[in-house]
Amino acid sequence: MERYTIGIDYGTESGRALLVRVSDGAEIATAVHEYQDGVIDKHLPGETRPLPPDWALQNPNDYLEVLKETIPSVLAESGVSSEQVIGLAIDFTACTMMPALADGTPLCNLPEFRANPHAWVKLWKHHAAQPHADRINATGRELGQSWLSRYGGKISSEWFFSKALQILEEAPEVYHKADRLIEAADWTIWQMTGVETRNACTAGYKAIYQDGDYPPREYFAALNPDFADVVDSKMSRELVDLGDKAGGLTEEAAGWTGLEPGTPVAVANVDAHVTFPATGHVESGTMVMIMGTSTCHMLVADELREVEGMCGVVMGGIVPGRYGYEAGQSGVGDIFAWFVDNGVPPEYHRQAEELGLSLHELLEREAAKQRPGEHGLLALDWFNGNRSVLVDVELSGLLVGMTLATKAPDIYRALLESTAYGTRIIIEACKESGLPVKKLIAAGGLPGRNPLLMQIYADVCNQEIDLIESEQGPALGAAMHAAVAAGVYADIEEAARHMGRLSDKVYKPIPENVAVYDELYRDYRFLHDLFGRSGASDPGGVMKRLRERRAGALKGSA
Amino acid sequence: MERYTIGIDYGTESGRALLVRVSDGAEIATAVHEYQDGVIDKHLPGETRPLPPDWALQNPNDYLEVLKETIPSVLAESGVSSEQVIGLAIDFTACTMMPALADGTPLCNLPEFRANPHAWVKLWKHHAAQPHADRINATGRELGQSWLSRYGGKISSEWFFSKALQILEEAPEVYHKADRLIEAADWTIWQMTGVETRNACTAGYKAIYQDGDYPPREYFAALNPDFADVVDSKMSRELVDLGDKAGGLTEEAAGWTGLEPGTPVAVANVDAHVTFPATGHVESGTMVMIMGTSTCHMLVADELREVEGMCGVVMGGIVPGRYGYEAGQSGVGDIFAWFVDNGVPPEYHRQAEELGLSLHELLEREAAKQRPGEHGLLALDWFNGNRSVLVDVELSGLLVGMTLATKAPDIYRALLESTAYGTRIIIEACKESGLPVKKLIAAGGLPGRNPLLMQIYADVCNQEIDLIESEQGPALGAAMHAAVAAGVYADIEEAARHMGRLSDKVYKPIPENVAVYDELYRDYRFLHDLFGRSGASDPGGVMKRLRERRAGALKGSA
Repeated sequence: MERYTIGIDYGTESGRALLVRVSDGAEIATAVHEYQDGVIDKHLPGETRPLPPDWALQNPNDYLEVLKETIPSVLAESGVSSEQVIGLAIDFTACTMMPALADGTPLCNLPEFRANPHAWVKLWKHHAAQPHADRINATGRELGQSWLSRYGGKISSEWFFSKALQILEEAPEVYHKADRLIEAADWTIWQMTGVETRNACTAGYKAIYQDGDYPPREYFAALNPDFADVVDSKMSRELVDLGDKAGGLTEEAAGWTGLEPGTPVAVANVDAHVTFPATGHVESGTMVMIMGTSTCHMLVADELREVEGMCGVVMGGIVPGRYGYEAGQSGVGDIFAWFVDNGVPPEYHRQAEELGLSLHELLEREAAKQRPGEHGLLALDWFNGNRSVLVDVELSGLLVGMTLATKAPDIYRALLESTAYGTRIIIEACKESGLPVKKLIAAGGLPGRNPLLMQIYADVCNQEIDLIESEQGPALGAAMHAAVAAGVYADIEEAARHMGRLSDKVYKPIPENVAVYDELYRDYRFLHDLFGRSGASDPGGVMKRLRERRAGALKGSA
Repeated sequence: MERYTIGIDYGTESGRALLVRVSDGAEIATAVHEYQDGVIDKHLPGETRPLPPDWALQNPNDYLEVLKETIPSVLAESGVSSEQVIGLAIDFTACTMMPALADGTPLCNLPEFRANPHAWVKLWKHHAAQPHADRINATGRELGQSWLSRYGGKISSEWFFSKALQILEEAPEVYHKADRLIEAADWTIWQMTGVETRNACTAGYKAIYQDGDYPPREYFAALNPDFADVVDSKMSRELVDLGDKAGGLTEEAAGWTGLEPGTPVAVANVDAHVTFPATGHVESGTMVMIMGTSTCHMLVADELREVEGMCGVVMGGIVPGRYGYEAGQSGVGDIFAWFVDNGVPPEYHRQAEELGLSLHELLEREAAKQRPGEHGLLALDWFNGNRSVLVDVELSGLLVGMTLATKAPDIYRALLESTAYGTRIIIEACKESGLPVKKLIAAGGLPGRNPLLMQIYADVCNQEIDLIESEQGPALGAAMHAAVAAGVYADIEEAARHMGRLSDKVYKPIPENVAVYDELYRDYRFLHDLFGRSGASDPGGVMKRLRERRAGALKGSA
C-alpha cells in the first residue's frame, strides 16, 4: 500500500493542499481555497468603520475552512483513501499572529471583541506597528541586547513583539483578555490537534528566541511595565523542532477533512523556510533563494557566524541541528514590475501584443540579444529599500549611464543585473564571515519563467545555479515534514533525499560574461558603499536627503 | 518715409527672411524657403554612392535660392518698396564651411569635382573629422598652445580646422585646388556684395582666432607639413567687426532680390550670437541662453577672464569691443524628448490624446502640481555628454531616488530640474571667475512653451529670468546688424535699445523653492564632481568605465 502525506501552504490570499507520495515525493493532487475575508485592510467584516492606514488583518476561521475544503478535494481527486494518508503538515506566512483564549478561541470570535480590530489576526504585512518596532530597536540598543546583531541590528515592524506591543498599547483590553498571543501557524496546528505548540522557526526568526531563550523580563519591562511578562503570561518557552509531531488529528478535525483521527500532524513551519528541503538539499553551505516580488536568501550551515545585515540567524530555524541564516532583497520582481508598468513606451506594448508575449517576455527577449556591458548602464536595486546587508528602508534606486540612445530593454536588463549584484553582495558577506555558499539553488516564482535572469545571476555570482523542480515548493516541503512527523524518515535530511528534487536545468557561468560582470560588480559595490553606507550628513548620503526632502514637501502640501 | 532692413537667418533645413522696421524693430513680413538639397547625408545629389557615417553636407546654391525666393516675397507681402530697404544682413549655422576658387566659385560647381564629397559645403553637424580634431587638440597640448584654454581645452570636430584638415588629408586634390576655405556665411556675403570678408564671430569661435591672430605656422606644420600655410594660402587675417558693412549689393544680387544695387550688406554673423542684441540688452554682465535641443549660454563682458569649460571666449565675438563668452549644455530639450519617446507608459499617451495635449504638456501639467523635492529624485543631465564646464562627451545620465511609487511626471520634472542645475553650474563658474551674471535672458524654442521649466530655472538659479519677445530672434538680430551697417545706428548697442525687446513675462524666484533647490543643488554638485571629475581609473569614474565596456561589447558583437 502506497503511503501519502498532505502539505498545506497558507498564503496571503488562499490556502493550498498538496497530496504527495511519501516514497518519492511525487505530487498526486492539489486544491486551492481562497479565504472568504481575504486580506482585511479596508474595514472589518460586517463593519463600515475604515481601518487606519498600514493595517492588514485576517479572519482565523478562514484557515479552518481551507482544511475543510481542500483536503476532501485532494482525496477525491486522487482516489487515495484516508488510511493511506499517514501525516499532515502546514506552512504559513509569518509573522502572522493573533490573540486567543486559553482554550484556543480567537478573541475576534467573542461577540464583545468582534468590532475591535486588535482582536483579529495581524497579517505579516500589517505595518502599523512601526513606532513600536522603533522603540524595540532603540531600547534593545540602549540595554545592549546581544540578540540585535542576529537580526542585522533591526527588528521589523512586521514581527511578533512589534505587533504584540501595539496591541498592549492601543487596545489594552484585548491584550489583557488574551491568554495567548500566538502565531496563526501554531494556532492552526492547535485547532487540528488540540495541542498547543510553538515552532522553532517563527520563534527564532520573528520572536527573538535566541540561544535558548527570549529576551529578559527587564527588557520587556523597559518597553512597557505591563509588557514585562509577555512571554510567561501569553506565550511559551517550550519550542518544538521542525518535523516533530505536534499531535494527532482530533475527532473534530478528522470530521472536517475526511482523514483518520490520530493522523500525525507536524509542528507548523514558515512558507519560505519549509521550501528549503523541497530542493532535496539541506547540507551545510547550501543557499536557497526564494525569488519573487522580493527575494529571501536562506543558508544552512553548521557554524554560527556574525554576518552583516541578516534578517535572522536561528538554530534549527530551517533544519533541526543547523543554523539557518535568512537574508533578503526587499525588491526584485517588484522592481521589474514597476518598470514594466511605469517605464515602457507604447511601441513595446503594441509589439508584445502582436507577438502574443507578455511585456516581460518581450523585454527579456530583446535584452537577451545584448552582451554584458553593451547597454552601458548600471543600477542600484533599492527601489523598495535595502534589507541585506544594509538594512535601510530609506535607500532608493539609482540608474547611471543613460544616453539619448538608451532604450527600454537596456534599462530592463540593467534592472535584472542590479538584483543579481545585490544577491552577490549577500553571498560575499556570507563568505567573508566564513560561510561559503557551496551550493546555490533558486526557487519561487521568478526562476522558471526568466531564463535570462537566471543566466545573469549565474554569471554575476560566478556560480552554478540549480532550480527546484516543484512548482509547489512550500506545500511539498510541508508534506515532507509530515513524513518525518509520521516517522517514515528519520529526519528532514533523509526526507529531502527521497522526496525533494532539483530540475534538470542548471545555469552555468559563462566565463567571458563572468569577466565583464566582475568589473561591473566592482562599480556596483562602489556605488553600494557610497550611497548605502553614508549617513544623511555625509556627502554620499544623497538618497537619505532626497527622502527627507520628499517627506518635507509632502508634509508641506498636506 | 519709414525705413526697413532685412535679416536672413540661414538654418539647417531652410532660410528665413524677416523685414523689420528700423525705427522700432517691428516685424513686418517674413518668408521661408526650404533648401532643395537640404542636409546631404545619404549620398550626393545625382549620385548613388552612399556617404560615410557622420557626414553632413550642403549645396551652396541653396543659399542663393533663399535670397531669390524670400526677399521678393517679403517685399510683396509688406508693400515696402526697394528704396525703403536700407540694409541687409544674414546669420548662419557655424562652422559650416566650404572650398572655393579665388573668384568665389564653389568647388562642387566644377564638373570635375561634382562627385567629390569634399568639394561640397561641410555642414556644422558633419562629425567625420573627429580624428583630425583629436590631433588638433593633442598637438595643441604638446606645443603648449595658449589658445586651448579659451575653448575649454578642446577644439570640436565641428570646427573649421578639423574640417579643413580632413579635406587636406582625405582629398588633397580638393585642398590644393581650393583657393579659399571659407565659412558659408562669409561666402554668401561675398556672393551678395562681390567682396570677400571674414567675420570676427566665426573666426574667433570656430577658427581659433585669438588675441589678434590665428595659431602660428609651426603649429599647423606640426599637424601636417602641407597644412602649414592654410591661413595665408586659403583664408585671410583681416577680420571685419560684426555690424560693419561688408559691401553694397551687386547688380546681379539686386536682380535676384528686387532690391536696389548698392544696398548696404553687413558682415555675416552666427545664429546664436546674432540673437543676443535682439533681446535689447548687450550690457556687460548680460547672459542670453538660447534654449532648444541643446542650450547655448552667451555672456557679454568687458573683462577677459579664464572661465572653466567655455566653448569659446572671443573679443568682439558677440558685440564689438566686448568679450563674448560662449558656454553650452549639450543636451536639454533632447533629454526631455528622449524621455517622452522612451520612458512614458501608454496611460499618459492616452490621457494626452483625450485632453488634446502634447505629451510634454501633459507631463508638465502633472509635474507642476508638485513642490520642489516632492518626487524625491535627482538627475544628472549628461545624456548627450557634458560641454560646459566639464567638456567631456564620455559622461552620461544619472537618476537617483526612485521607489516603487515613482511615476513618469516625477522623472520628467527631475529631468527639467537637472538641466537647470547644469545651467547654474555655468553661471557659478562665471561668477567664480569674476564675471557675475547681472541679467539673465532666455531665448530659443523652449522658454515660450515651457512655463514650469522657466520657473524652475529662476528658482534653481535664484535669479530673475527675462524672455526675448521676438519669435524670430536670429533674423531680427541680423536685421539690427543691417541697420548698423546702413549707418542708422552708431553701433549694435544703440540698435538694441531701439529694435530689441524683452517680453512682459518675467520669471521671478520663489523664496521657498529657492531654499529647497539650494539644498538639491548641493547634492547635484556632489554628484557632478564625483562622476564628472573622476578619471577612468578613479572609483568615481563609473560613467567612463561603463562607456568603455559598452564600446568593448559592441566591438565584440560586431
